[in-house]
Amino acid sequence: MTSKVAIANAAPAPVAEVADVLQSVSLSAHRAPPVTHHSPMQLARLAYTPRISPLLRTPRAVTFTSGEPTTASYDVEVIHSQFPHLFGQPALHFQPSDPLSTPPKKNIAVVLSGGPAPGGHNVISGMYDFVKELNPESNMIGFLSGPDGILKNKHLILTDEIVGPHRNQGGFHMIGSGRTKIETEDQFAAARATAKALDLDALLVIGGDDSNSNAMKLAEDFKAHGLKCAVNGAPKTIDNDLRNAQVEVSFGFDTASKSYAQSTASLAFDAVSAGKAYHFVRVMGRSASHIALECALQVHPNLCFIGEEVKQNNITLADIVNQIADLVCERAALGKNYGIIVIPEGLVEFMPDVEALIVDLNEILATSETPLTYDNCASALTEENAKLFRMLPPAIANQLMLERDPHGNVQVAKIEAERLLISIVTTMLAVRKKNGKFDGKFSGVPHYLGYEARCALPSNFDANYTYGLGRVAAALCCNEKTGYIATLSGLTKKPEEWIPAGYPLTMMMNIERRHGKDVAVIKKMLVDLDGSPFTTFAESRDSWRLADNYRTPGTTQFWGPRADDVNLSLALDAEGKTN
Amino acid sequence: MTSKVAIANAAPAPVAEVADVLQSVSLSAHRAPPVTHHSPMQLARLAYTPRISPLLRTPRAVTFTSGEPTTASYDVEVIHSQFPHLFGQPALHFQPSDPLSTPPKKNIAVVLSGGPAPGGHNVISGMYDFVKELNPESNMIGFLSGPDGILKNKHLILTDEIVGPHRNQGGFHMIGSGRTKIETEDQFAAARATAKALDLDALLVIGGDDSNSNAMKLAEDFKAHGLKCAVNGAPKTIDNDLRNAQVEVSFGFDTASKSYAQSTASLAFDAVSAGKAYHFVRVMGRSASHIALECALQVHPNLCFIGEEVKQNNITLADIVNQIADLVCERAALGKNYGIIVIPEGLVEFMPDVEALIVDLNEILATSETPLTYDNCASALTEENAKLFRMLPPAIANQLMLERDPHGNVQVAKIEAERLLISIVTTMLAVRKKNGKFDGKFSGVPHYLGYEARCALPSNFDANYTYGLGRVAAALCCNEKTGYIATLSGLTKKPEEWIPAGYPLTMMMNIERRHGKDVAVIKKMLVDLDGSPFTTFAESRDSWRLADNYRTPGTTQFWGPRADDVNLSLALDAEGKTN
Repeated sequence: MTSKVAIANAAPAPVAEVADVLQSVSLSAHRAPPVTHHSPMQLARLAYTPRISPLLRTPRAVTFTSGEPTTASYDVEVIHSQFPHLFGQPALHFQPSDPLSTPPKKNIAVVLSGGPAPGGHNVISGMYDFVKELNPESNMIGFLSGPDGILKNKHLILTDEIVGPHRNQGGFHMIGSGRTKIETEDQFAAARATAKALDLDALLVIGGDDSNSNAMKLAEDFKAHGLKCAVNGAPKTIDNDLRNAQVEVSFGFDTASKSYAQSTASLAFDAVSAGKAYHFVRVMGRSASHIALECALQVHPNLCFIGEEVKQNNITLADIVNQIADLVCERAALGKNYGIIVIPEGLVEFMPDVEALIVDLNEILATSETPLTYDNCASALTEENAKLFRMLPPAIANQLMLERDPHGNVQVAKIEAERLLISIVTTMLAVRKKNGKFDGKFSGVPHYLGYEARCALPSNFDANYTYGLGRVAAALCCNEKTGYIATLSGLTKKPEEWIPAGYPLTMMMNIERRHGKDVAVIKKMLVDLDGSPFTTFAESRDSWRLADNYRTPGTTQFWGPRADDVNLSLALDAEGKTN
Repeated sequence: MTSKVAIANAAPAPVAEVADVLQSVSLSAHRAPPVTHHSPMQLARLAYTPRISPLLRTPRAVTFTSGEPTTASYDVEVIHSQFPHLFGQPALHFQPSDPLSTPPKKNIAVVLSGGPAPGGHNVISGMYDFVKELNPESNMIGFLSGPDGILKNKHLILTDEIVGPHRNQGGFHMIGSGRTKIETEDQFAAARATAKALDLDALLVIGGDDSNSNAMKLAEDFKAHGLKCAVNGAPKTIDNDLRNAQVEVSFGFDTASKSYAQSTASLAFDAVSAGKAYHFVRVMGRSASHIALECALQVHPNLCFIGEEVKQNNITLADIVNQIADLVCERAALGKNYGIIVIPEGLVEFMPDVEALIVDLNEILATSETPLTYDNCASALTEENAKLFRMLPPAIANQLMLERDPHGNVQVAKIEAERLLISIVTTMLAVRKKNGKFDGKFSGVPHYLGYEARCALPSNFDANYTYGLGRVAAALCCNEKTGYIATLSGLTKKPEEWIPAGYPLTMMMNIERRHGKDVAVIKKMLVDLDGSPFTTFAESRDSWRLADNYRTPGTTQFWGPRADDVNLSLALDAEGKTN
């Protein structure tokens, strides 16, 4: 049977042709980009034109004003010593000028690094358009499967046919991504070899804090070795921890955090509708709890833990399960045997008692000659740690003992915190029930919201932001600027009013101890407990415990009155700055 | 700090007033409906006007034409004997007429039954509007927390203030839902007492196949006891298994299945972007695999199992893990160590070898005097069953042995199929690797998509459909019709062209053996292996195995060019019928 519906929903002629072209392209890549089979929605998004500042519209009119030399906010001398050629460059601001004549042809490369985030394809699209508008003879080169593609010189020459179908689309699959880090001297040498082989004028690294730190090291290395190739960065990560005075938000956070908030809200309404379960929702964000905080601001859950607060206040696992059990008891007294609790991915790692247990466990496991049983392990621990160890569900205790990372360390990140908490709280409430302190019912349902939003279709905000970032990055790359991160600021205003700039990556760095060395890396932005998003949450959360003030941001809208909503964290941050 | 952003995103004055009113309403309920704190998106949805047929617009102009007496498609005589008063009623079609004068005041009640589905609030809104337009003096009564509210006469008198804030909103929390079944003679007597106490003219049961079967029993019981109270039903369930020649789709399926498809698609693009994991996505739908099928049609995953096909072809767990391992090996040979696999919730229960193991296990566990160890259990099983038992991950085998339902039976439904498959496939691939038959990498990531879409904001389709169903149901209820299900058909056309009708619930019934009795229940619609949705999938799936033809329907849109897309299952079904 030939289905009309299937045909109606398949790609129409122009895109089918693109697919044919893609299939026929002879790739040097080990992995061909997937042929695109767009849905009607994807086709509709292809037609979206990202909104940008007039300053970014005419590539040949882009000039910069340079400010004073910059410095770093932390560890200035060590950072200076690690980047002797590039430390202290001025910030670069865009200014209008008369269009120049066509500049010489250039070879500009791009690489995606780390986990995907909505909007990555638009950074590449924006860059591609700018480079080609400047000089249609210029080449845009995409390294395949992340930084590994640089080391092995696996790449794709980007064309209209390749870039076209990925405009405003989710995913990083046009060229793929990867987590390889360029760290050793051999790796730097391989990167230099590739830059020379391709006669590269510039490389843009689209990635998180570590990837942008790496971009800076590559920029310095290339400069030190006299290569012409500039290296710049663009701020990506759904976790939103690559953020500072210059970077207002990292791309992808808007789409992803609102998606998690929407799912969390549906679970909240499910809880109150069915009236019989507590949903424990763990959301992505291992180092920083920005996503959990955004979910809380959007949804008004009964309880939400913020890792940074847990760490600062030395809140233990025992404290947390008690807080949850208290909530359940208080709500049960109101006839409410349901609720919603939000947990950041890294919660367990922030708890001081768990940290102490892990240190003790690592020591015992490292010094023991034979595999330990559960009981032997427990008796080898300090009294305090043994108490915590015995509180853990056996499955998780065993997992900690048996599954270890390549260095032999306990893998605390593998603990599914939502299941851990449900298990302990269940046990605790059974005891309270026995003692007459709880007469409700408790049923916990675990959820983990993570991978399902990293490749969603980018929101209008992320589509505009990333396309603009791509053009900013292209302006830096085509004008021999190196060691910069592309930025747009004033993001709660209209996209046409967003202010483009390039800031030296060294401005954002501090020194951290890694593998026994002092390394200059971009400082992660954790949740600021004095900042507007957290204080707004902290002022309201008590009123959310027993009431069911749930709300939902709904699904990401591309059209209509709510299509340009931005996430509340960004809005509150912006407000906090103007107050 | 008073936050402008928080204020901008809080409910504006009119809704805040509604909240105050709600708070001040003195409820007979054991659970007050939650105060609404709408987000800007929720406020925007409040303003949506559902699109309906002109036939439903003027309540006083609604009249019916009755067709011939109806029968049942199965077990006619037994069904007739169980519904002696109401069997064989004619189908009711709506026709225009001149508006009548105001009819007498009525008391019309509504109850939500079973798991929530997007659109439930709009069934109530549509009903409320119709009843009040017919006679503003009439009462609309909502039973609280499901059928239990009928038994205990816990209810809420619905008013503009209560219904208003829930228009076009997700969730069932306006009056709550529950899973109590009215089955015993005592329960029927309690229901009659409530109907008399409230002087009810009619009751609408919004629920799935079992709840609608119950509605029919209540209708017959009330009629047999001379009560005036009519009982009718409306077809709800995200699983879409309440469907037949009269019911084209059950409400909530459209919103929920597209939401799961969107998440599945994001995971697919994540797989190809990162290139290092297989995502195993289990989606809701225990008895029927309609949701898995819709996800497959929307996303084009590498593999999707359909429970009905597994059952029909006697596909075993061993077959399925082999199919997956083969896929992984073939893709690894192409350099692809990633992919996406969709699994229906009830998959494990459809497998004949698992079924045989469960029967054997139940027998052994029931006859054993002492708790069995893993090894004792395995040696007591038949050779075939023991082989399968030993193939299971120990955690799952232990779970089967230890966690049993109140009847002492093994709880196969508790098995997380996605984790089971990942575990077995991992072991299987390690063996293949050792034997030189696999040289790729395999990392499986489990996902379960279920609760997070049941209370999403309903799509325009579901908002229109449910509001219309509510008005159809009200027309039946206000015109002394009893034992009917409210329907709208022609659902791939414009909502204004949808055809309203009432069909006798007995038409949809068959006889099933439950607890040793022959019971008349609505026949569940499983995936039809000859139907257009399945055959379309079956024709394409081979081409999806190795290619990465992933696509996404995107998030539910309420405005713009894609706001009125319907799910592909419905579209293909409609096309199948016209072919």
